[in-house]
Amino acid sequence: MDQRIHDHAEVLVDWSARVEDGDDVVVRVDEGAHDLAVAVAEKLGERGTNVLPVYGSDEVESAFVRGHDGDFDQDPDFEVAMLERADAVLSLRGQHNTAAKAAASGEKRSAYKKSRTAIKARQMDTDWVSTLHPTRAHAQNAGMGYEGYKDFVYDAVLRDWESLADEMANLKDLLDEGSEVRLVKEGTDLTMSIENRTTVNSAASVAYDSHNLPSGEVFTAPEATEGEVYFDVPMTHDGARIRDVHLAFENGEVVDWSAEVGEGALEDILTTDEGARRLGELGIGMNRGIDRFTDSILFDEKMGDTVHLAVGRAYSSCLPEGEEGNQSAVHVDMITDVSEDSRMEIDGEVVQRNGTFLWEDGFEG
Amino acid sequence: MDQRIHDHAEVLVDWSARVEDGDDVVVRVDEGAHDLAVAVAEKLGERGTNVLPVYGSDEVESAFVRGHDGDFDQDPDFEVAMLERADAVLSLRGQHNTAAKAAASGEKRSAYKKSRTAIKARQMDTDWVSTLHPTRAHAQNAGMGYEGYKDFVYDAVLRDWESLADEMANLKDLLDEGSEVRLVKEGTDLTMSIENRTTVNSAASVAYDSHNLPSGEVFTAPEATEGEVYFDVPMTHDGARIRDVHLAFENGEVVDWSAEVGEGALEDILTTDEGARRLGELGIGMNRGIDRFTDSILFDEKMGDTVHLAVGRAYSSCLPEGEEGNQSAVHVDMITDVSEDSRMEIDGEVVQRNGTFLWEDGFEG
Repeated sequence: MDQRIHDHAEVLVDWSARVEDGDDVVVRVDEGAHDLAVAVAEKLGERGTNVLPVYGSDEVESAFVRGHDGDFDQDPDFEVAMLERADAVLSLRGQHNTAAKAAASGEKRSAYKKSRTAIKARQMDTDWVSTLHPTRAHAQNAGMGYEGYKDFVYDAVLRDWESLADEMANLKDLLDEGSEVRLVKEGTDLTMSIENRTTVNSAASVAYDSHNLPSGEVFTAPEATEGEVYFDVPMTHDGARIRDVHLAFENGEVVDWSAEVGEGALEDILTTDEGARRLGELGIGMNRGIDRFTDSILFDEKMGDTVHLAVGRAYSSCLPEGEEGNQSAVHVDMITDVSEDSRMEIDGEVVQRNGTFLWEDGFEG
Repeated sequence: MDQRIHDHAEVLVDWSARVEDGDDVVVRVDEGAHDLAVAVAEKLGERGTNVLPVYGSDEVESAFVRGHDGDFDQDPDFEVAMLERADAVLSLRGQHNTAAKAAASGEKRSAYKKSRTAIKARQMDTDWVSTLHPTRAHAQNAGMGYEGYKDFVYDAVLRDWESLADEMANLKDLLDEGSEVRLVKEGTDLTMSIENRTTVNSAASVAYDSHNLPSGEVFTAPEATEGEVYFDVPMTHDGARIRDVHLAFENGEVVDWSAEVGEGALEDILTTDEGARRLGELGIGMNRGIDRFTDSILFDEKMGDTVHLAVGRAYSSCLPEGEEGNQSAVHVDMITDVSEDSRMEIDGEVVQRNGTFLWEDGFEG
C-alpha cells in the first residue's frame, strides 16, 4: 500500500480527530475509500478505540431513495442511538461515480436530505472529521489523471499542520482585532463589517473547531456588506455549473447578480430565502499545498491565494454568545482568485497584496 | 445489472427477512457485495423501511485487530444501541480475499471474536438473515470460474422456497414423530435418539426460524449417539483443511476419531470441552439447487442428498422448553454424501435410500 495512505490515516486519527483510548468511533467508508479504511482501522486499533464502520455509497443511497415513496422517517431510532453514543465520526469520502446521485429524482433527494437534518446535527455534536481518499472518479471530476490526482490530494493533506496553524494565527489575530474588511480586485470592491465576530483558525483539527482534512483557511461571519464582487473560480452546485458570478450588495443584501454560465442556478440559490442574499462567511484560503482548482469545495476553498464568500447560513463558532447571525437554508461558497492585482485591507491597512501577506517576504504594503 | 441480483434482493427482503414499513434495517455490506446492496436498498425503499448500511470487510477488521493490543472492549455502547433498536440485520457476505483474516494473529482474532459474543447475541435477537453475493474470491475458494460460480450461487438461492418448505415439511413431520434415527453407509452405522426434540424446517425465512439464504435443510438436536460415522466431504475449519473423518460414539460421546488430513485440527475441536465430543445437530440437506461442494458451509450443508452432523452446541429451537441441550463453545458441522449405497431409518422404517425420500418417485423402501 502507498505509504501516503498510512500517513493520511495518521494525520486523520492523531492530528484531526484526536481520538483517545476507549472512544467509540464511527468510520464512514465510501465505496472507493477501502484502502484508507484499512490504514485508519489499524491506527484506531493502536489507539485502543472501538470501531464501527458504516458504508457510504451514493449508489446505494440513491437506490434506496429511488425505491421509496418519498415520505421518509425523520430520525430513525437506531441511527440516532448510534450517533448519540459515538465520540467521533470519521468520514472517508471517495465514490466510484461522482454523478451517482442523479439516479434518484431531485424532489425525493431533497426530501431525503431534509429528513436527515437531525441525524446530521447529531453527527456534528461528535468530534467529526471529513476527508477524501483519491479515486479515479474524483480524478475524472478534477480533469486529471489518477496518479497526478493522488499527488494533488496528498500534497494538500500531508502538511505540517502545526506550523500552518501558527501561520494562520497571524491572520486570525488581525481579523479578531479588526472591524472592517475591504477586498479589491478587478470587478471587485467590497467592504464588510466583522466587528465583534470571531475568526476560526481552521487547521484541520477538532482542537481548532475545524472538521475538514485538508483544511487551511481562516473564516469569519461578515455583515453589512457593501459594493460589488466578482468570482472567477468555476463551481458546481447541486450538479449545475456556475461561472463568472458578479454580485452587488447594498445594506448587506445582494441587489443585483449575474453569471456567464448557470445564471438560473445562481438565481435559485439567491431566492431560496432572505438569508440567502446575505453573506454567511468570509474565508481566506491559506493551504499552498493546493495548487489548482479541482471543482471540489473541500479543496478549492482552502487553496492559497484565494478568498471565498458564502451566501447563506453563518457558522455559530464565528458569532458572539447569544447572537444568531445570518440564517438560511443554504450556505453556498463562491471563490475568487487573489494571486494577482488584488488587495485585502483590514480597517484601511493592507494585509494581503497579490496573495502575499504582510508578515511574508516580498510583501508590498 | 444482472437481473438475478434483483431477484436475489427480492427473495432476501420479502421471503427471508419479511420486512415491514417503518422497520429499522441494518444492511451489512461486505467488500464485494456492493451490487447486491444497491438492489437490496432499492427494494427496502419500496417497502418503506429505514436503512443503515454498515461495512463488512475482513481486511478492515483484521487491520483493527492487528493494531490493537488485544484487550478489546466488550459490548461497545454505540453498536449495542444500534442493534438493540434494529428490527432486522441483513448480512450481504462477499469478500475480495477469503484469506484476509490471516493478516492478524490467531490469538488476537480469537480475543476479538470473544469480545463480540454479546454483540452477536443481540444481532440474533433481530430478524437477521445472512446471504452471499458471488465474488471472484469466493469463486476461487470454490475452485470455479466466476461465471460458473454465479450460476451456482443463483441456482441455490433462487428456488421456489414455498414448495421446498412444503416438501421439507414431510421430513420434519416424520422426525417430529420419531424417536430414533439410524444412518447406514460404508463406514457408517450410527443411531441417535431424537425423542422429544423438535425439527426445524429451515426454509430460508425468519418465518421458519431459518436465517440463511440459501437454506434448504431440516435439522434437529440428537443425543445418546451410538456407533460410527464416516464424513467424506472435505471441509475447512478456521483455515485448516480436514478430510475423511471417522468418529466412533459410545453413550453419546466420541470415544475414537481419525482423519486422513488435519487430524490435529480435528483433535483441537473435539478436545475444546466436554460438549465438543457430543452431537449438537443432525441436519439433512434438501436443496437440490446445490449440485456440488464448494468448501463453504453456507452451501455445502444444504446440498441435496447429504447429511451433516455437528459436534458441539445444540440450537435451542430444537429443544423442549426449559431443556438446555448440549452445551459447548464450538459447533462444527461435518458432512457425508448419502446419494449412493446409504439409507436413513426412523424407528426402523427406511425414510431415505440413496438420496431418495419415501414420498418421492423411485423410492425403494
